[in-house]
Amino acid sequence: MQNSPIGLMDSGVGGLTVLKEVQRLLPTEKTVFLGDQARLPYGPRDAAEVTTFTRQIAGFLQRQADIKMLIIACNTATAAALTTMQKELIIPVVGVIAPGARAAVQATRNHRIGVIATSGTVKSDQYQQTILAKDPHNTVFSLATQNFVDLVEANDLTSAHAQSVVKTGLAPLLDKNIDTLVMGCTHFPLLRPLIQEVVGPDVTLVDPGTATANMATSLLDYWNLANPSGVQHPAGDYFTTGDVDRFNKLADNWLEETPVRAHHLPVAELTQTTEVE
Amino acid sequence: MQNSPIGLMDSGVGGLTVLKEVQRLLPTEKTVFLGDQARLPYGPRDAAEVTTFTRQIAGFLQRQADIKMLIIACNTATAAALTTMQKELIIPVVGVIAPGARAAVQATRNHRIGVIATSGTVKSDQYQQTILAKDPHNTVFSLATQNFVDLVEANDLTSAHAQSVVKTGLAPLLDKNIDTLVMGCTHFPLLRPLIQEVVGPDVTLVDPGTATANMATSLLDYWNLANPSGVQHPAGDYFTTGDVDRFNKLADNWLEETPVRAHHLPVAELTQTTEVE
Repeated sequence: MQNSPIGLMDSGVGGLTVLKEVQRLLPTEKTVFLGDQARLPYGPRDAAEVTTFTRQIAGFLQRQADIKMLIIACNTATAAALTTMQKELIIPVVGVIAPGARAAVQATRNHRIGVIATSGTVKSDQYQQTILAKDPHNTVFSLATQNFVDLVEANDLTSAHAQSVVKTGLAPLLDKNIDTLVMGCTHFPLLRPLIQEVVGPDVTLVDPGTATANMATSLLDYWNLANPSGVQHPAGDYFTTGDVDRFNKLADNWLEETPVRAHHLPVAELTQTTEVE
Repeated sequence: MQNSPIGLMDSGVGGLTVLKEVQRLLPTEKTVFLGDQARLPYGPRDAAEVTTFTRQIAGFLQRQADIKMLIIACNTATAAALTTMQKELIIPVVGVIAPGARAAVQATRNHRIGVIATSGTVKSDQYQQTILAKDPHNTVFSLATQNFVDLVEANDLTSAHAQSVVKTGLAPLLDKNIDTLVMGCTHFPLLRPLIQEVVGPDVTLVDPGTATANMATSLLDYWNLANPSGVQHPAGDYFTTGDVDRFNKLADNWLEETPVRAHHLPVAELTQTTEVE
């Protein structure tokens, strides 16, 4: 089991921001990533559907790669499915919201925290609830910026159009006097320079992916699941239900590892083999 | 259970270095600390005896304060008793060696890591084993500097005598070309300035207490055990089997919180009530 890979899943390429942190902190661990781009975006879907998708992907990663840990590298899926997956799977399942909320609580000084996320994550209210549970002295301002996901999936990270979308999207937060902003969708760290430019240098941007990779490390060490014989920087395994070329291109730009050679996984393979509840 | 304190134990005051990190990262969590100074030092004792002491203290902290997590803030006791305690207790039990080893592996660049610790910890070989299990490309140089504990317990942190003891103690490591040094005893971070002076500014000092507090945070969040209604910086509870005044003085110097008012706990209360195995 120690030699098994860590599995990561996302609706698309956003989860690669978490994967990158995992690869940085745990350079000898094997990883397998699945981006469910054929069914993206998850943000506007209801929680039951997102839970079904998450269950299908977890099942695939267990059958395919015997993963020793699942990281739900997607805020929408974490909000919808984490608790259910922790009950259903015997391996540790890590989401991004609790670590992200913790990092925000530790970062803020004026206790005014912004959260940008997909509409599904905002609707779940889980960032606000989790942040307040960790410290009720905070005020949380949540904002859905669903269309940021589209920019990232289109690999449009720097254009004038992207700048305009980010500026318009963040406008409602600019008079809230926040000192900390949680990038509550794993796609958003790819837009970090644009986001920082709009909110200004005094606002600390929190990437829950970093905190999530730290939690994954702690759990591996706690359960003695770390790989004792890993080579440095093994090549990851990548699957996408969407377009392989587009996935590879974005992954190559973002990850240290190159070239990324993703496998195509038809959605039918996810849906037909997991209807065994 | 969420409102219960986190328990920390050490043979003496060294564990306060871990407590300080826990209080910094988790400012709304209640804590209860026990320093077993009447039976200090643990370092030269055999593993079975240290395990018995640890079991006694864990039992006391559970009865006294219904702790929700135990942090063995002592490298010697971690080496001797962590695995046993994790089996015997239903609450999470966190030791300092795995987080410290992880931090060292992440810090080193030249893969030459020094570890200073008590004779018991060095004899257990657990730092070396754990570091190599996380990355076999490292070379580990372990050195017992048992008498550093005496300096700290005597609150002798800056004198010429202390400088001389630290310089002499570290001498065998100075020609090893290490770039990272693990302070593998929780007492040693109190001597950090002296240690850094001797090894030079290019050697990264790793304090496992920081990494341990991070692991404790991850586990609390993972199991949803964090306190949802905590006040900021509650006063900690402190027990020592040794001299209360000496304990208070050192704790006052080291912790943000002041004044510390420890309770005296006779060793007999530890030994008589836990003989129920």
